[in-house]
Amino acid sequence: MNKSTEKEKMIAGEFYFSADPELAADRKLAKQQQRLINYEEDSELRSQIIKETFGYTGNKLHIEPTLRFDYGYNIRVGENFYANYDCVLLDICPIIIGDNCMLAPNVKLYTASHPLQPDKRNSGLENGRPITLGNNIWIGGGAIITPGVTLGDNVVVGAGSVVTKSYPDNVVIAGNPATIIKTIDIEEE
Amino acid sequence: MNKSTEKEKMIAGEFYFSADPELAADRKLAKQQQRLINYEEDSELRSQIIKETFGYTGNKLHIEPTLRFDYGYNIRVGENFYANYDCVLLDICPIIIGDNCMLAPNVKLYTASHPLQPDKRNSGLENGRPITLGNNIWIGGGAIITPGVTLGDNVVVGAGSVVTKSYPDNVVIAGNPATIIKTIDIEEE
Amino acid sequence: MNKSTEKEKMIAGEFYFSADPELAADRKLAKQQQRLINYEEDSELRSQIIKETFGYTGNKLHIEPTLRFDYGYNIRVGENFYANYDCVLLDICPIIIGDNCMLAPNVKLYTASHPLQPDKRNSGLENGRPITLGNNIWIGGGAIITPGVTLGDNVVVGAGSVVTKSYPDNVVIAGNPATIIKTIDIEEE
Repeated sequence: MNKSTEKEKMIAGEFYFSADPELAADRKLAKQQQRLINYEEDSELRSQIIKETFGYTGNKLHIEPTLRFDYGYNIRVGENFYANYDCVLLDICPIIIGDNCMLAPNVKLYTASHPLQPDKRNSGLENGRPITLGNNIWIGGGAIITPGVTLGDNVVVGAGSVVTKSYPDNVVIAGNPATIIKTIDIEEE
Repeated sequence: MNKSTEKEKMIAGEFYFSADPELAADRKLAKQQQRLINYEEDSELRSQIIKETFGYTGNKLHIEPTLRFDYGYNIRVGENFYANYDCVLLDICPIIIGDNCMLAPNVKLYTASHPLQPDKRNSGLENGRPITLGNNIWIGGGAIITPGVTLGDNVVVGAGSVVTKSYPDNVVIAGNPATIIKTIDIEEE
Repeated sequence: MNKSTEKEKMIAGEFYFSADPELAADRKLAKQQQRLINYEEDSELRSQIIKETFGYTGNKLHIEPTLRFDYGYNIRVGENFYANYDCVLLDICPIIIGDNCMLAPNVKLYTASHPLQPDKRNSGLENGRPITLGNNIWIGGGAIITPGVTLGDNVVVGAGSVVTKSYPDNVVIAGNPATIIKTIDIEEE
């Protein structure tokens, strides 16, 4: 686990310094990509820039402006990804999303965290935890997913939920903090 | 109830395909109007473009950027409407708002919904339910109104609330999900 | 307590009319400053414009776009202030923030309020209450702080929280409404 660079530590979820020059240069580049993405009015061209920016995408994706992210290269989305207006994907750690996932407007996926101890936090040390979403997930408007959360296949997250724990396949979760409010019987066709 | 077009089905709250060419063209036009609205620095001129875009407005209205909506023509707001920064009005179904209503920043009115069954959702079928707000409503910052909600006259919604059910006149609602926290005694003057 | 101008009444938390010409002129100027801040791609230059706009700042600060505020001059932030994307600081009353405070993306500090009585609200009368944050505070993504809240030193606010009451030093608060979920033992080094 001896990571040699701050970037390696960051992605691995270890404490790191975000002021590191390599990371600062990466963020600067990411902001340039963000501007290109968000100013591009043609959705096909916008998708093309996103494909060049994210770590991985499927062939088909659609994201509305204003998209926010930290690095982009830690975001991996499967086939047929859709994100509506003003989603935020803070990707200091990997954000891994399966196929056929839909984010409603204002959905926020936050992998970034900070120490609770103020002296340690003020030192600039920070760390994160990955977010992993299965296939066929639909996240309702304004919902927040916090660091370290994994959601199984077919999960539906209610609008405005704050998801602080992981949940398995085939459930509807809602509330702050989110809890299971319904199980989805998958219809075999 | 046999609607002949996808647009008619959408507005009526029936299942429809959003990839329909007529609807795609409408959304493209709506995005152009959105850009005009959000880039316009003069609030009087911005109101004028909004009046041309919404289905109905009163004479007096004021909306701060960045306003988001799907079509615009399904939004009907009464006299003296005010919406602060970054409000989202997803209007696949009608959003009907009475007179003297105020939306604080970041308020989201979502009429759009999707099937819980992943196969059906992935087919592209979707549907919504209207949102209807009475007169003299004040919605606090960051609150979310979900599909199908009706709020009576004089309702006040606390900041950050998630409103998942309908409520009658003269109540203050708050929380996630929102519940009644206070009744408003209307003073006769 | 006889304030002579609407601006003095506003800042003091008394009922005032926001349509007042002096305040309207101040808001127009504030919107111009906001555009300069949010269009500025160079973060050092952006910080410089913010320093000229806020009532007080430390030497070191970093704020990502799109920053929203009402006047700017009622915002006073201490040394080493950081705010991530899309924070909203509605400063009709003072927003006083200590040293080493961090706002995650989409944090909203709302000092503005309105009467619950619809006739009074529709008259245009409004009032607010100040927000006061101690040193070393970290507010999680999407959290909302409502009018009148004071938070002590070292407070951590969970993502998506709605803070409706004041809290003392050294606590983690979360939820809607936020409550204390943990006490922070400050390590002496």
